[in-house]
Amino acid sequence: MNFTFAPTPLYLLHSDANGNRIYIKREDLLPYSFGGNKARIGHEYLEDMKRQGCDHMLAYGNARSNLCRVLANLCAGEGIPLTILRPADDDGQQRKAFNGQLCESFGARILPCLKTGVAESVDHAMDIIRSEGGKPYYIYGDRTGQGNRAVPVAAYAKAWAEIEAQQAQLGVRFDKIVLALGTGMTQAGLLCGMRQSAHRPQVLGISIARDEAAARRHISAYTEAYAGPGRDDICICDRFRSGYGQYDEEILHCIRDTMARCGIPLDGTYTAKAFYGMKVLMDEENWRGQNILFLHTGGTPLFFDSYR
Amino acid sequence: MNFTFAPTPLYLLHSDANGNRIYIKREDLLPYSFGGNKARIGHEYLEDMKRQGCDHMLAYGNARSNLCRVLANLCAGEGIPLTILRPADDDGQQRKAFNGQLCESFGARILPCLKTGVAESVDHAMDIIRSEGGKPYYIYGDRTGQGNRAVPVAAYAKAWAEIEAQQAQLGVRFDKIVLALGTGMTQAGLLCGMRQSAHRPQVLGISIARDEAAARRHISAYTEAYAGPGRDDICICDRFRSGYGQYDEEILHCIRDTMARCGIPLDGTYTAKAFYGMKVLMDEENWRGQNILFLHTGGTPLFFDSYR
Repeated sequence: MNFTFAPTPLYLLHSDANGNRIYIKREDLLPYSFGGNKARIGHEYLEDMKRQGCDHMLAYGNARSNLCRVLANLCAGEGIPLTILRPADDDGQQRKAFNGQLCESFGARILPCLKTGVAESVDHAMDIIRSEGGKPYYIYGDRTGQGNRAVPVAAYAKAWAEIEAQQAQLGVRFDKIVLALGTGMTQAGLLCGMRQSAHRPQVLGISIARDEAAARRHISAYTEAYAGPGRDDICICDRFRSGYGQYDEEILHCIRDTMARCGIPLDGTYTAKAFYGMKVLMDEENWRGQNILFLHTGGTPLFFDSYR
Repeated sequence: MNFTFAPTPLYLLHSDANGNRIYIKREDLLPYSFGGNKARIGHEYLEDMKRQGCDHMLAYGNARSNLCRVLANLCAGEGIPLTILRPADDDGQQRKAFNGQLCESFGARILPCLKTGVAESVDHAMDIIRSEGGKPYYIYGDRTGQGNRAVPVAAYAKAWAEIEAQQAQLGVRFDKIVLALGTGMTQAGLLCGMRQSAHRPQVLGISIARDEAAARRHISAYTEAYAGPGRDDICICDRFRSGYGQYDEEILHCIRDTMARCGIPLDGTYTAKAFYGMKVLMDEENWRGQNILFLHTGGTPLFFDSYR
């Protein structure tokens, strides 16, 4: 399924009195499985799995994971078996979430997993798959989760060319690209993509869970795996975290307000934290005359979770 | 909010052994309020309301209405008050639905309404709005619901030009366009749009509630209101109805199967009935060598209702 045949909508969302213009790129409208950055990234994993001649995909992610939903959809579409290691939340609960329900309806096998014992769970799942006669492909490469970093980075290294072309069409140059920062794969991809570009916007990741130092280590590891050592400008703000999947009243208000004003669904785990953080920073740091691109990285099922 | 700046994705979904090719146009990905045909239609109503100098919108629709959700979003975005007359379902129940919840979160005023007393409810709501100092705009024009038929038809009379351009780009000629038929506004719009075209595909509406005769009367009334009398080829199939908002196991299976195979969300009230009907007819009538365009008319919130 090639769903990147046409660029996703990129348009001016808002101009303010300080000469800032906020553009938005609607990756949530990629025409496959509610899209999002994980649609592009999942596609890269699937292609890599085929190149390696494996026949059973193994993923890791909780019930709110956008990546697991996309992978489960891709695998269902191609008749490839998928096993998901699903950790409980930090408080030990398994909350109901549409992404998780979709994984189940796509026929994924869900194995529970302790966050403190991921490596053992990966070993165990690989053993099960092999004992069934399958050739497992673990998306994160090895039991430490560090063996397959180049593959997902390719998605946004490629997507950067799409953004550059849209910039040129609109006759605008982005000063900043703002996005939700979770694993760091997407930010690393953009940074790798723009290494060859004359004009490089600042890429500002609003971290949704990790502190700045940890997020920086992850992004560096991803960029280096894909493109080798380089001098990337890794910008991170970790002030708007409140724990993965946890959010407060301000974030919930941001979701409802952005939907009402702009008809755009955000979610409390990723995009609303980034959107809210961007608006606070714009104000506090007194941004002026900036062309800002907000990368909407998807999560439509999570939007509906917040309205249940 | 102009959200029709770029054509929605139109791509080949499936080819079969009989030489049929099913294309899909993803109107559900119009980048505003989960899109759908009602995004274009709602935009037409809003523009008409402004032309008429009114300042309070009045709509009619139940909790599953896509049109009410889009109107409530548009009105919230522009600070225009909206009142919705909301009938209960045929069995007297008010079921929980994301579209209805969204209307409420957008701040629409919801007034209950009996299906048997719509005209009186319209009168009553208009009186309330006027007594508050507002100038009401009832989307259906008058208490009989027949006073404003040209306005919504404009949406797909215009969208036909977009489809024609995409046809040319793909180098294909559609033999049939298949879509869910509810009010008939969308089908009427396409028929009006193509009156000037040399090549006119058959437009086949799969009725989701009305019988063929009633559906035909509605479509004729809409085409005539917009474009005057004409010889339109009105094709209707009413075999796949099971009551508005009611659906059976086959439809539910179609929703889950289409999501799993293609990553495309359908819904039990509209699009899945049309998609399922199309596949049954293709088989029964032994379609061969046809280029078929399925018009995905949206309803993402309804998809999530079916997974609650």
